[in-house]
Amino acid sequence: MEKTSIPKGTRDFTPEEMVRRNYIFNSIREVFQLHGFRPIETPAMENLSTLLGKYGQEGDKLLYRILNSGNFLDGIELDTNSSENPSVLSSKICEKGLRYDLTVPFARFVVQHRNEIVFPFRRYQIQHVWRADRPQKGRYREFYQCDVDVIGSDSLINEAEIIQIIDEVFHKLEIDVTIKINNRKILAGIAEHIGMKDKFNDLAIALDKYDKIGIDKVNEELIQIGFSQDQLHEMHNILGIIHNDNIGKLKFLDSIFPDSVIGQKGLEELRKVFDYIENFNIKSKIEFDLTLSRGLNYYTGAILEVKAADVEIGSISGGGRYDNLTGIFGMEGVSGVGVSFGADRIYDVIMQLNRFPKDATVHTKVMLVNFGAIEEKQSLLVASRLRDAGVNCELYPEYHKIKKQLDYADKNKIPFVVIIGENEIKENVILLKDMVSGNEQKLAVNDFIRFFGK
Amino acid sequence: MEKTSIPKGTRDFTPEEMVRRNYIFNSIREVFQLHGFRPIETPAMENLSTLLGKYGQEGDKLLYRILNSGNFLDGIELDTNSSENPSVLSSKICEKGLRYDLTVPFARFVVQHRNEIVFPFRRYQIQHVWRADRPQKGRYREFYQCDVDVIGSDSLINEAEIIQIIDEVFHKLEIDVTIKINNRKILAGIAEHIGMKDKFNDLAIALDKYDKIGIDKVNEELIQIGFSQDQLHEMHNILGIIHNDNIGKLKFLDSIFPDSVIGQKGLEELRKVFDYIENFNIKSKIEFDLTLSRGLNYYTGAILEVKAADVEIGSISGGGRYDNLTGIFGMEGVSGVGVSFGADRIYDVIMQLNRFPKDATVHTKVMLVNFGAIEEKQSLLVASRLRDAGVNCELYPEYHKIKKQLDYADKNKIPFVVIIGENEIKENVILLKDMVSGNEQKLAVNDFIRFFGK
Repeated sequence: MEKTSIPKGTRDFTPEEMVRRNYIFNSIREVFQLHGFRPIETPAMENLSTLLGKYGQEGDKLLYRILNSGNFLDGIELDTNSSENPSVLSSKICEKGLRYDLTVPFARFVVQHRNEIVFPFRRYQIQHVWRADRPQKGRYREFYQCDVDVIGSDSLINEAEIIQIIDEVFHKLEIDVTIKINNRKILAGIAEHIGMKDKFNDLAIALDKYDKIGIDKVNEELIQIGFSQDQLHEMHNILGIIHNDNIGKLKFLDSIFPDSVIGQKGLEELRKVFDYIENFNIKSKIEFDLTLSRGLNYYTGAILEVKAADVEIGSISGGGRYDNLTGIFGMEGVSGVGVSFGADRIYDVIMQLNRFPKDATVHTKVMLVNFGAIEEKQSLLVASRLRDAGVNCELYPEYHKIKKQLDYADKNKIPFVVIIGENEIKENVILLKDMVSGNEQKLAVNDFIRFFGK
Repeated sequence: MEKTSIPKGTRDFTPEEMVRRNYIFNSIREVFQLHGFRPIETPAMENLSTLLGKYGQEGDKLLYRILNSGNFLDGIELDTNSSENPSVLSSKICEKGLRYDLTVPFARFVVQHRNEIVFPFRRYQIQHVWRADRPQKGRYREFYQCDVDVIGSDSLINEAEIIQIIDEVFHKLEIDVTIKINNRKILAGIAEHIGMKDKFNDLAIALDKYDKIGIDKVNEELIQIGFSQDQLHEMHNILGIIHNDNIGKLKFLDSIFPDSVIGQKGLEELRKVFDYIENFNIKSKIEFDLTLSRGLNYYTGAILEVKAADVEIGSISGGGRYDNLTGIFGMEGVSGVGVSFGADRIYDVIMQLNRFPKDATVHTKVMLVNFGAIEEKQSLLVASRLRDAGVNCELYPEYHKIKKQLDYADKNKIPFVVIIGENEIKENVILLKDMVSGNEQKLAVNDFIRFFGK
């Protein structure tokens, strides 16, 4: 037999996995909708001009490019092997690429549809993204993102609502999480305070690696871009105030940079967000984490990351405030805030915690046994009535031995089997077999439909 | 402002379109599940070795190929421009392609997971496919297919159930359809009868174009592959028996080729299918259409196509029985039957018929007006209580003039607005504005939640 396979880093999903995944998507979608967010979808393929340069040099390399259709070499002069530059050639023979995230396509969508959109625009989007990353545990080349954003509103009530949404999603999914929050403007205030205002972006990128590469390597990077030992020392003194509570940290920072306009703005924003969420019934732990920086340069205010409390895994959601995302497409001054849920990691967390609901394994509630041409007629009638009553059911299609048919129901985790033989037809009853307990029960057809119907 | 655009033949979907599309997907999915089918998903990217050669030469050209990542030219010798063959080069620099349909990936899935699957395997799959086709009205380069198949069972009860599913889907969607049915074995019987047994595949492909290119062109094609005028005449005499009812046609054909083994087998199969569905409460018209042939060679028994009764458009679903689909991947003898629903054409049909349900335009039921810092606190509390009661609602995030806020609700088709000002807080009431009638009503907060809650 031919060896069948799929590309590295991609996955097939079996019915069992699908039901569990849909449980996650449905839970997230329900919270989004309860908060009045509206769904959009964008194409898997975008023009490369839309995608290139938006994710840094590293991101450009991870884009999947689609070869132009037809004679893609038409009008293109090829150099000989030795001198042809792959990235130059690829830009000649590929015009389209696969979506890398949902944020840039969303920005493109907003600009392109700006005349139809009523701002503030509250949208959610649950779609695949593709990255030519090296596959490893928990990292795939095709995966889902679930994004929710408000765009066209500066109000900090949006930040508070995003936190509320995160809290509600994970409460629904029964995952204990810590929601880490910081503000880019506070980090800018610290940079200013230690005399490194100009190096803020580099500082943010270096800090973002804190968890992954450790403090020593971060320091090395900072020294390379011009930080002195004194500046590092001062910075770590500030970042190290981990033993204070959130409000204590705000007070401490207030005393550190009373004159930094941007730093004070960041503190004020964060205070306001804390004020809002104090009135919400937030169940998750909220942690003001000064070391949180998020690598992406487009964040300008609040930044957020979510960690599962009981499972060792990277962040399972992240987001923040961006003041000028649509600026990359020439539409200035549209501020937004949002968060992205990583469905694949959330799946792994729920699996490890063994918290998928039991009924998230079952599709079909009833299988009807098939004894032959006469019996199946009655079974088909009963099946139709069950469906009319909203019950998922199926008739076994072949006249196989009953053992084989029950085995099919068992392996497919169908919880009930209906047996209709000659006698049952005569008596207008069915024999109901509970596949979990093994119990059998004779029931009048009408009663059976009434018991099982929705 | 930069001109933003998406690739030709692809589409963005706005919230309004999404809700209507989800109405279609949910209706189809619900019927699939009621019949005990289980969802699977496969990756957007498949190895080109899986896809190539499965859709004919024309199909190969329509595959989207994905450029290999990294230095895709590494180890490849380029000829000069003049002599390089695009299809040879593309096979060197592309290993993966985008899914062209759901049938071949399903066959690949079955072979790859054969040890986990319990046969008969009843699966459904609702995913995008991509084709580098010339875009035109109703034809896109990215579109959805909704496939349902039973694989690993020869029983004709499966054909009957597929027809039942088609009928239920379109009944649910309120589209009157004609379900056309034929059997490849009957067509083979006719070919045998007129002495053209060997040319059966060519005959089937030519007949498939009947609707598109007309009888004269079909005849031309058949003459080119060796049909004589007498044979054509004889064939059209048989195909032309359109004025008989389904059973009458079966009887007529029985008298035409009493000795054709394959023809008789086809008649017997179709008779059996008609027998089954006679007991179902089928609402659609079932038409035994001898000119129906479906171009794809993998069909071996029943073939099906669905036409909308009241809208001029191509077929909106199609499918049939294939005896050896997994054979292309070396797993022989697994027979299946299924149908594919074309969601995009179904969308167009429902739009033309103006039959989308009214509530398929609304996401958010209530918007709460925002008057300022004090009032929004109370509004947030009411919003939380509404959500707890299962009502989709949102607080307007800015302190804009009420006219602007109502305008937002109006444009977003939010049917109810809640106004909470100073007085309402004092009295513990809300002012409810019906955005359709314009009526306003004062309600105690508790009563309001009780009325609106699910």
